[in-house]
Amino acid sequence: MHSDRLLLGPGPSNPYPEAMEALSRPVLGHLDPEFLTLVADTAQRLRTVFGTRNRLTLPVSGTGSAGMEACLASLLEPDDLAIVGVNGYFGERLCEVARRLGAQVRAVHAPWGRPLDPEQLLDAQRQAPQARLVAVVHAETSTGVRNQIAPLRELQNTDTLLLVDTVTSLGGIPVEVDAWGVDACYSATQKCLGAPSGIAPVTLSERAVQRIRDRERPVCSFYLDLSLLDAYYQGDPARYHHTASSTLISSVHAGLGRLLAEGLPAVWERHARVGERLQAALPELGFELFAEQGHRLPQLTAARLPDGVVDAAGRKALREDFGIEVGGGLGPLAGTGWRIGLMGHNAQTRPLTTLLAAITS
Amino acid sequence: MHSDRLLLGPGPSNPYPEAMEALSRPVLGHLDPEFLTLVADTAQRLRTVFGTRNRLTLPVSGTGSAGMEACLASLLEPDDLAIVGVNGYFGERLCEVARRLGAQVRAVHAPWGRPLDPEQLLDAQRQAPQARLVAVVHAETSTGVRNQIAPLRELQNTDTLLLVDTVTSLGGIPVEVDAWGVDACYSATQKCLGAPSGIAPVTLSERAVQRIRDRERPVCSFYLDLSLLDAYYQGDPARYHHTASSTLISSVHAGLGRLLAEGLPAVWERHARVGERLQAALPELGFELFAEQGHRLPQLTAARLPDGVVDAAGRKALREDFGIEVGGGLGPLAGTGWRIGLMGHNAQTRPLTTLLAAITS
Repeated sequence: MHSDRLLLGPGPSNPYPEAMEALSRPVLGHLDPEFLTLVADTAQRLRTVFGTRNRLTLPVSGTGSAGMEACLASLLEPDDLAIVGVNGYFGERLCEVARRLGAQVRAVHAPWGRPLDPEQLLDAQRQAPQARLVAVVHAETSTGVRNQIAPLRELQNTDTLLLVDTVTSLGGIPVEVDAWGVDACYSATQKCLGAPSGIAPVTLSERAVQRIRDRERPVCSFYLDLSLLDAYYQGDPARYHHTASSTLISSVHAGLGRLLAEGLPAVWERHARVGERLQAALPELGFELFAEQGHRLPQLTAARLPDGVVDAAGRKALREDFGIEVGGGLGPLAGTGWRIGLMGHNAQTRPLTTLLAAITS
Repeated sequence: MHSDRLLLGPGPSNPYPEAMEALSRPVLGHLDPEFLTLVADTAQRLRTVFGTRNRLTLPVSGTGSAGMEACLASLLEPDDLAIVGVNGYFGERLCEVARRLGAQVRAVHAPWGRPLDPEQLLDAQRQAPQARLVAVVHAETSTGVRNQIAPLRELQNTDTLLLVDTVTSLGGIPVEVDAWGVDACYSATQKCLGAPSGIAPVTLSERAVQRIRDRERPVCSFYLDLSLLDAYYQGDPARYHHTASSTLISSVHAGLGRLLAEGLPAVWERHARVGERLQAALPELGFELFAEQGHRLPQLTAARLPDGVVDAAGRKALREDFGIEVGGGLGPLAGTGWRIGLMGHNAQTRPLTTLLAAITS
């Protein structure tokens, strides 16, 4: 009924075969004991990839953007101050979502293509210790930049929570929620986790959970209130919240199973290897890598196009002649650059060489 | 990996085979021209089942609850007055979601199990013509009651919008968005539409669209802002919003295809027929139908248990001995009643007779 694409843009990527297969399993009701076991097992697998022992770890029924909003809406009240690192589109998105929730936002900028300076973020917090959270995107999908999270662990000595977007990093490069002192972390399933989109894994530290308990006003969103979701997934029928999709959760569970059977270090190594090869090859083809050296993500590469390659026409040719999708640029790269993902199941040699062959043919 | 249930609770129901099959299609990116065609075709099928020509008709990436919140969040501003019909759990949910958004709520009640009086709702609006919307659940999933919507068409002569929840009605009984003067309508895919959960079909009239344009403050939710979703589904990369799931939308598209190939009148007739048979059989088995006669939904039946049947043990036996799921009661039926759905693919003779055989054996 529709085409079979090799998905090498910023996401979705092609899911692991195990994740596709799981989609065909019979649907389960949201109160079925087998569904509750599936959710508990999925949460346990998510804890492993998040690097956390957080009890509150669950699949939000929406995409990564729903995960972002679930965290911000649950942790911020109107007029709260949020400090947000901004060096790309998704940092800007964090600001926009927080502002819509009525929060005050103080942005700490770095140019697109360069990493945030963790010291500037910590300074901003020192100047405004009343800030309720610092929010940072780990892997900026718009630029291919990796931001450092570990130095922000210092926030654990303050009353300011650390919120980290791992939409494009989780399962592709190391994420260490507990070791880095991350209080709230969300991701998405259609990138390095190798499943379809539609689920946002979220994990909260105990002090983030306590922050929600201590709210003065209820979360303005019912659908994305993480305390309601937490209660719901305990399986008490009186805490009915929504009809979670066993179809999507089964798929995520299976994708995570495949990933963990391979082992996180091996998966990270696989992403690193093909990403390096891509980033070595592109300049030879006339592309100019956008992210600053030393801060590049292996799984997502943004690059300016060679002279003579027209953005839309080039992507159309890849799509129509080869069935390959790459992503257009955002911000300063709009119309002049591409974003190429080698994520999850596609972080392998064949997708890489297939793409390079198509570009050079 | 898990059991194959016959899902005869309040939802999810077992999807149409065509909807299951579509889940296995290759994933498409959210900017792929084939994906945009899929979304446009799905919207067109949704217009047919909604009975509308509304341009803004789209799949929200979340469950029915996300559809409810998308409509309320997009149409209400803080301190706006909303009049809400309440005769069951989902009417109460409408109030809760609206209150969290900062709206004032005036509830118009009817007892659980009885229909709302449309004249009371219209009176409430006459007494408070500044009300921004009147919200009503068409098919109360908690009680099996069908509320009348057509008389509320009168609201078209006022500045008050009409918002209708068709989560359990759409595809099971007639829904006529345009003929009934409904300004905003949301549903869910896992009930009478015969697909998995995870998508909330939504449609807005032109005056509802205008209401969003005229807002003084942005919608507090970025994820559920229907004007952003509308722009996103036009396919302009600059209006990126979230990574919609081609997997789920393909499945909904296929389920709708099956439904429309059969034809809406035939599908409604099928739901009516098996529902009548169930409602004739249950009293003979000692069940007492909960919804008032003349206002019963065929697709969802709530009934008090016969003496001697213990709720949890009875449902467990159905599940473990027969692989059949029925739903527990909510509100006054909690612990003392069941909710039985014959919806979508399950609105057929075999699921009905299979259930009756299991109950009587």
